[in-house]
Amino acid sequence: MRNIKMIVQYDGSNFKGFQRLKDNDNTIQGKIEDVLSILTEEKVEIIGSGRTDMGVHAMGQVVNFKTGCKESVEKIQRYLNNYLPESIVIKEIEEVDDRFHSRYNAKSKVYLYKIDNNKCQNPFSRKYSYHIEKKLNLDLMKEASEYLIGEHDFSSFVSSKSKKKSNIRKIESISFQEKNDLMEIYIEGDGFLYNMVRIIVGTLIDVGLKKIKPEEVQEILEAKDRTVACDTALAKGLFLFKVQY
Amino acid sequence: MRNIKMIVQYDGSNFKGFQRLKDNDNTIQGKIEDVLSILTEEKVEIIGSGRTDMGVHAMGQVVNFKTGCKESVEKIQRYLNNYLPESIVIKEIEEVDDRFHSRYNAKSKVYLYKIDNNKCQNPFSRKYSYHIEKKLNLDLMKEASEYLIGEHDFSSFVSSKSKKKSNIRKIESISFQEKNDLMEIYIEGDGFLYNMVRIIVGTLIDVGLKKIKPEEVQEILEAKDRTVACDTALAKGLFLFKVQY
Repeated sequence: MRNIKMIVQYDGSNFKGFQRLKDNDNTIQGKIEDVLSILTEEKVEIIGSGRTDMGVHAMGQVVNFKTGCKESVEKIQRYLNNYLPESIVIKEIEEVDDRFHSRYNAKSKVYLYKIDNNKCQNPFSRKYSYHIEKKLNLDLMKEASEYLIGEHDFSSFVSSKSKKKSNIRKIESISFQEKNDLMEIYIEGDGFLYNMVRIIVGTLIDVGLKKIKPEEVQEILEAKDRTVACDTALAKGLFLFKVQY
Repeated sequence: MRNIKMIVQYDGSNFKGFQRLKDNDNTIQGKIEDVLSILTEEKVEIIGSGRTDMGVHAMGQVVNFKTGCKESVEKIQRYLNNYLPESIVIKEIEEVDDRFHSRYNAKSKVYLYKIDNNKCQNPFSRKYSYHIEKKLNLDLMKEASEYLIGEHDFSSFVSSKSKKKSNIRKIESISFQEKNDLMEIYIEGDGFLYNMVRIIVGTLIDVGLKKIKPEEVQEILEAKDRTVACDTALAKGLFLFKVQY
């Protein structure tokens, strides 16, 4: 069996998230598997580097799958891009070592969160950013983000629906870019809990709006209690930006 | 009567163009007039700086309208942004001199055309750019654009549906920007004929693809015949960027 690795981009607006739920559902995984299964005449199962929730996008999701199909990777890519909806794109494809596993081998992931900080929502990024009308204070948000860097118990920053045993994760970096009133927040870490990026961003937004002080982020971390952190930021502003191996 | 000027942004994807066609139609003008008429309890007619075709977007369309309504401009803006579809945004609003006319007073217009030159179409700009898979040669396109600068008879670059008497227009500048395989072409001129920007871009694309040589643009201009120019580029890549007074 060959092992094929692909980098996938998707506009998650109209999907029920990455992970296949049942046959013929409206998920990224389901769409890709259905087209691959027709091409290869096999029941193909793709392994993603991780799930993304309903409405979340990806610029660099990584998946791999095993197949006995003899077609060239170029042909597989072209076939997928022809038959997938335009909102899912196979950006890169290559045959890799049999042992490569897109989830187990991932060393770190980078998420990107986009905030439209224009007074009026920009109509062109309305599906790809969270609109916050009131001007955010970037300096305070940067200061707050420092408390989150490093290895911590992120129990305050995980959805109460999560069933993971350990909530200890390591955040490598949080960086900010601003251009034309669009704020971009890049968060890199070794792994992320359910809704973790969106709760972190929701908390940073409250700092930027001066609802809470930067140093309160330290208290929120220490509380290890989801109810003390801030609201979960909207899914539509979130992108799985890159997976590093 | 007060004279109100507004800068309007819209995602034209799902509209039949700017200009109102009949009552209750799906046009930008129709949508804005309908909401304004409810607010002001008058039959309001807005004047745009010009039409944009079906599927064309605007980052800086300018409109003005007369009203006897006493509400503050801030209130009018908020009301419009609340009740218009999210794809139409009133970005700026101000009360202006009674003599201001958004069409007659326009000195020049800047159009922006976006080309997605990635090998695979970027899913996030798929509604706001024209995807050209094959790499475009920017230098050749720049060279070709030089022939169009200045005052010319643009009869080769106007839709055969146009009914204007004179096809003489002046192009002030054509400039190019490239970032992440997204090519942006800015075209400024004193006025544009029906489909003129899209036919110019279609022709520049053919130069970039080496289907025609840069110097052939001079011949196309001189022919004064629509059938010798290249295809009209897709509407979805075009934005009315700015109107200057």
